[in-house]
Amino acid sequence: MSDTCTLAIDAMGGDHGPAVTLPAAAAMLGRHPSLSLILVGDQERLESAAASLDPPVRQRLTIQPASQVVDMDESPSQALRFKRDSSMRVAIDLVRSGEADACVSAGNTGALMATARYRLKTLPGIDRPAICTTIPCRGGRFRMLDLGANVDCTAEHLFQFAVMGSVLVEAAGDSDHPRIGLLNLGEEEIKGNDQVKQAAQLLQSSGLNYVGYVEGDRMFHNVADLVVCDGFTGNVALKSSEGVAAMISQYLRDEFRRNGFTRLAGLVALPVLKALRRRLDHRQYNGASLLGLRGVVVKSHGSADAWAFEQAIETGFIEASEAIPQRIDARLGEIFGAGPTQ
Amino acid sequence: MSDTCTLAIDAMGGDHGPAVTLPAAAAMLGRHPSLSLILVGDQERLESAAASLDPPVRQRLTIQPASQVVDMDESPSQALRFKRDSSMRVAIDLVRSGEADACVSAGNTGALMATARYRLKTLPGIDRPAICTTIPCRGGRFRMLDLGANVDCTAEHLFQFAVMGSVLVEAAGDSDHPRIGLLNLGEEEIKGNDQVKQAAQLLQSSGLNYVGYVEGDRMFHNVADLVVCDGFTGNVALKSSEGVAAMISQYLRDEFRRNGFTRLAGLVALPVLKALRRRLDHRQYNGASLLGLRGVVVKSHGSADAWAFEQAIETGFIEASEAIPQRIDARLGEIFGAGPTQ
Repeated sequence: MSDTCTLAIDAMGGDHGPAVTLPAAAAMLGRHPSLSLILVGDQERLESAAASLDPPVRQRLTIQPASQVVDMDESPSQALRFKRDSSMRVAIDLVRSGEADACVSAGNTGALMATARYRLKTLPGIDRPAICTTIPCRGGRFRMLDLGANVDCTAEHLFQFAVMGSVLVEAAGDSDHPRIGLLNLGEEEIKGNDQVKQAAQLLQSSGLNYVGYVEGDRMFHNVADLVVCDGFTGNVALKSSEGVAAMISQYLRDEFRRNGFTRLAGLVALPVLKALRRRLDHRQYNGASLLGLRGVVVKSHGSADAWAFEQAIETGFIEASEAIPQRIDARLGEIFGAGPTQ
Repeated sequence: MSDTCTLAIDAMGGDHGPAVTLPAAAAMLGRHPSLSLILVGDQERLESAAASLDPPVRQRLTIQPASQVVDMDESPSQALRFKRDSSMRVAIDLVRSGEADACVSAGNTGALMATARYRLKTLPGIDRPAICTTIPCRGGRFRMLDLGANVDCTAEHLFQFAVMGSVLVEAAGDSDHPRIGLLNLGEEEIKGNDQVKQAAQLLQSSGLNYVGYVEGDRMFHNVADLVVCDGFTGNVALKSSEGVAAMISQYLRDEFRRNGFTRLAGLVALPVLKALRRRLDHRQYNGASLLGLRGVVVKSHGSADAWAFEQAIETGFIEASEAIPQRIDARLGEIFGAGPTQ
């Protein structure tokens, strides 16, 4: 990678659009002098909002007009057919043309995946792109994929996910030799469905650092840097975890608000509760990677605030700087030789 | 059901054996004057431990000898072949012969399911038994199945799980018309794999109170009384949830132990933290039901303490008193007419 980097931002995507994407973009430009951003969307609105930025920041910000917005509940096929000038698609096309090194969007996940796959195409040897995110665990963090792009997966798909994810973990500096686990309902060899069992065999003979099956609770004990699963299971596991964490936070608030004494106890415990909240703040992990494409695409939570969206742009910046797609391509070449996987 | 009830307890199962099962049995007998228990296992050991019980409790306790114990890591086929006089199998056989109305075991889940299925058989119209447990959620609780007995499930299996689970929810008094949801990675109709989509169609035309797809995080918002899924997904969802809850509890302890001030804050907040712990105490939900068999079989956590094991016996007591297998059989008859499902 060159020492400068240009990212395309779908400025209209997500629940809040420019109200979130513009301040996040400005903050990122302030932090990274080598970064340039292209904000894609409603030209008039973006121009007027950008007018208030400091000149040194403003001069690394370009505005690219796009007349349409993909709705959050629009079907991928509708978006592909009728939203050819959407901020999402125009941002992806900037990656396709090489004008941008990555694209970041808080828009509709299904439409983003479908459009990115259609416009950028998958890498040779990759059948299906996958969604990968970072999840906190005891004493560290791990990455998990797929999180919903692929409801049914063969053993070969799971193996490709493992290759892609391990490149990402290495590039992010989390591990030189990432421990790869397969999500399963038990740790014994006989456990699991056929796809998982066959994927285990592929991983065992791959030279990758495969550490075996990982159960849902064990993921949070820092036993793997990368947890691989099909998109149905991964989505359910991630959302169940988020659901429980939110419920416990709510319980904690309820209990501290129960009466005068507990409110006082809550005041005394406030620094502790704030420290806990910081540790559990999922916004710091915002920015899921669409891996397996011929370009970097990062998906932010639709409800992200400016700080969270900034983390998603940061993820795109790191992946572009580290040339993740090229590194995945090279790794696939090492594993499979010159040809693609199948 | 008659007004008295006899339960067979696998006294040797679980991590702690009689040290846990015997005190739990004694406590249950003290609470329920209409209950009798048969403790199955090492006769000498159980006789000598039972000698210290109060006579009114002791006289409702029978000891049934069994010379073997199924190991916690033994494969189901090994247990079936070589442990014909195990405490687990003898306890199940007491249900088969009608001497007991239910069986409760903290032993190896795979062996328990395989032995129960082999000895008791499934109900007509049920292809596969499933494991169902109770999970706390905001303002209530819900039941979920399957949790690991069946890694691959057809739409018909999922539908049968829904019928069995809804009978259990009704019998437990949680709802007269249980809201049934299908676990999925989205709430829109187009989401999910083929099995889930087809199960949705079966449920929509069944007359059951089907409320649609439920996402992993939404389960904890009390949107369904019963969440149906295949055993792979259910196991991962349940264990992920437990893993996150345990991690947050650990974080909370860590933060309160950080220094002198936080320890003091922890003392002030102790009543609040205890209340939180009570709300999150999974021991109160101990006792998973093996549904779909011609008899009641309840599985306790292997690591259960005496109080938790008592809750599992309580679950067996309720299911036997409510004649769950007979009610499932009757419900299947109502839905499918005289014949079985397929």
